[in-house]
Amino acid sequence: MFKPIGLRVLVERVEEEAKTASGIIIPDNAKEKPLEGKIVAISKEVEEDENLPLKEGDKVVFAKYSGTDITIEGKEYLVLNTDDILGIIE
Amino acid sequence: MFKPIGLRVLVERVEEEAKTASGIIIPDNAKEKPLEGKIVAISKEVEEDENLPLKEGDKVVFAKYSGTDITIEGKEYLVLNTDDILGIIE
Amino acid sequence: MFKPIGLRVLVERVEEEAKTASGIIIPDNAKEKPLEGKIVAISKEVEEDENLPLKEGDKVVFAKYSGTDITIEGKEYLVLNTDDILGIIE
Amino acid sequence: MFKPIGLRVLVERVEEEAKTASGIIIPDNAKEKPLEGKIVAISKEVEEDENLPLKEGDKVVFAKYSGTDITIEGKEYLVLNTDDILGIIE
Amino acid sequence: MFKPIGLRVLVERVEEEAKTASGIIIPDNAKEKPLEGKIVAISKEVEEDENLPLKEGDKVVFAKYSGTDITIEGKEYLVLNTDDILGIIE
Amino acid sequence: MFKPIGLRVLVERVEEEAKTASGIIIPDNAKEKPLEGKIVAISKEVEEDENLPLKEGDKVVFAKYSGTDITIEGKEYLVLNTDDILGIIE
Amino acid sequence: MFKPIGLRVLVERVEEEAKTASGIIIPDNAKEKPLEGKIVAISKEVEEDENLPLKEGDKVVFAKYSGTDITIEGKEYLVLNTDDILGIIE
Repeated sequence: MFKPIGLRVLVERVEEEAKTASGIIIPDNAKEKPLEGKIVAISKEVEEDENLPLKEGDKVVFAKYSGTDITIEGKEYLVLNTDDILGIIE
Repeated sequence: MFKPIGLRVLVERVEEEAKTASGIIIPDNAKEKPLEGKIVAISKEVEEDENLPLKEGDKVVFAKYSGTDITIEGKEYLVLNTDDILGIIE
Repeated sequence: MFKPIGLRVLVERVEEEAKTASGIIIPDNAKEKPLEGKIVAISKEVEEDENLPLKEGDKVVFAKYSGTDITIEGKEYLVLNTDDILGIIE
Repeated sequence: MFKPIGLRVLVERVEEEAKTASGIIIPDNAKEKPLEGKIVAISKEVEEDENLPLKEGDKVVFAKYSGTDITIEGKEYLVLNTDDILGIIE
Repeated sequence: MFKPIGLRVLVERVEEEAKTASGIIIPDNAKEKPLEGKIVAISKEVEEDENLPLKEGDKVVFAKYSGTDITIEGKEYLVLNTDDILGIIE
Repeated sequence: MFKPIGLRVLVERVEEEAKTASGIIIPDNAKEKPLEGKIVAISKEVEEDENLPLKEGDKVVFAKYSGTDITIEGKEYLVLNTDDILGIIE
Repeated sequence: MFKPIGLRVLVERVEEEAKTASGIIIPDNAKEKPLEGKIVAISKEVEEDENLPLKEGDKVVFAKYSGTDITIEGKEYLVLNTDDILGIIE
């Protein structure tokens, strides 16, 4: 299992189809675009930070070029700084 | 529903016609230009910040190239950092 | 009415003639040049800041390229960060 | 023995084969890629920092171009700032 | 009258002849060169700052390209940040 | 005698032969490479900083292009900021 | 007399001959080189700073391109930020 450290979370990207289902469509223009994903692991620091309402399972929207890709057991994930998360889809 | 996190709000842009009605016209020159919008969601952090007089429904003016566009259920919105909001139209 | 937020004030530029009358002339050289204006609205944050002696009606001098232009009900104004205000004309 | 100082740890890179075994595969694209290693020494500062859950023997993932290479007794290591460590493989 | 705000003072430049009289000559080379002036107004913030030994009438030395020129009632002055003042001539 | 001030130490570089003896070999590639030296003087500030385990006689590893060369009584030394010291060889 | 303000001291450069006498020789290479001088005036702030062991008469070593030249009564001096002083020659 991958456990992020610092103000970071591990995110599983949401597939294009899922994205349409949740109602978030990314406009195709020159501006920075957000993407959608699901948090699968959070650091102890995020867990203990009362101002960060982030937990495993949350669907989050983040800026397109943020984070670092990693592949764990053949599956792709993204390690994101919590600052790059714009909001939560409730 | 989209819930912003950190010092961010979700804003619905005001259409050109509405903009004229509210009395705000953006001059057409080389300087940075503000735009007008309506706050539709604020983060818990903004809500609890006593120095930020921002709430849902407020009409705000913000710098032109600030924020990140997102489309929720077919409608376009803007996620704005509160620092990019210049003022409120009362 | 436009109410600035954060450390910002709304300023009405002083016309060239008025500027001459108040005794402030901007030298025409390569250096950064200040301009003169009148404060027409201040944020709650400026109002409550004891170290900022700024109030509505004050005539202020500010750097030339600072601030953001906005037009309210057909009249041009400038939203200025208080840091860009060099001083007050008393 | 090499003892790091400041917020630094000494890391032994994990070989390509070991990397596959642990399930971390680095995708081959243009984005910044993380690598895997094993902590062999930590500074006193890291040791005493309660918010940094890092100890000798931990397998960590870090950004590709971070850290400084050193060779101790013929073996290559990496001195990493703890900020460059994305997470721990548990 | 012009009253500076923030950590700023209003300075009247000293003429070339006066400068020679006070013993300060600016060497003509490629390095940043200080200039001499007399403080004619200080902000309330400077006045109340116990660590800033600056008052009206002080002769100060400052870096050549620092400050903003303003002309008040036909006379040229300089608005200087206190950080740009290198020292006082006693 | 040279006494560093601030967070600085005076370091005597270790010769190439000595470096091999201590087991530190600098790999010859494009990345930033650390070098080895011996602390010969520390500032009072370093001495009193409980988080900096540095004392005279310590063998330290530092980044290649850090520090300032000085020659004291015909011998070359390096004045290093403590931040540029990666670790101690024990 | 020139009295520095802020974290600054007034330094009289040591002549080339004196420099050799004190044992400090500046190597002639591409790196940043320190120079030697004698403190002739310190600011009140430096005087009261217990962590800054600098007083009038101290011989100090500083980086080559730091400071601002000034000429007082025909004699050249350097106004130095205390951060640019590497150490004291005791």
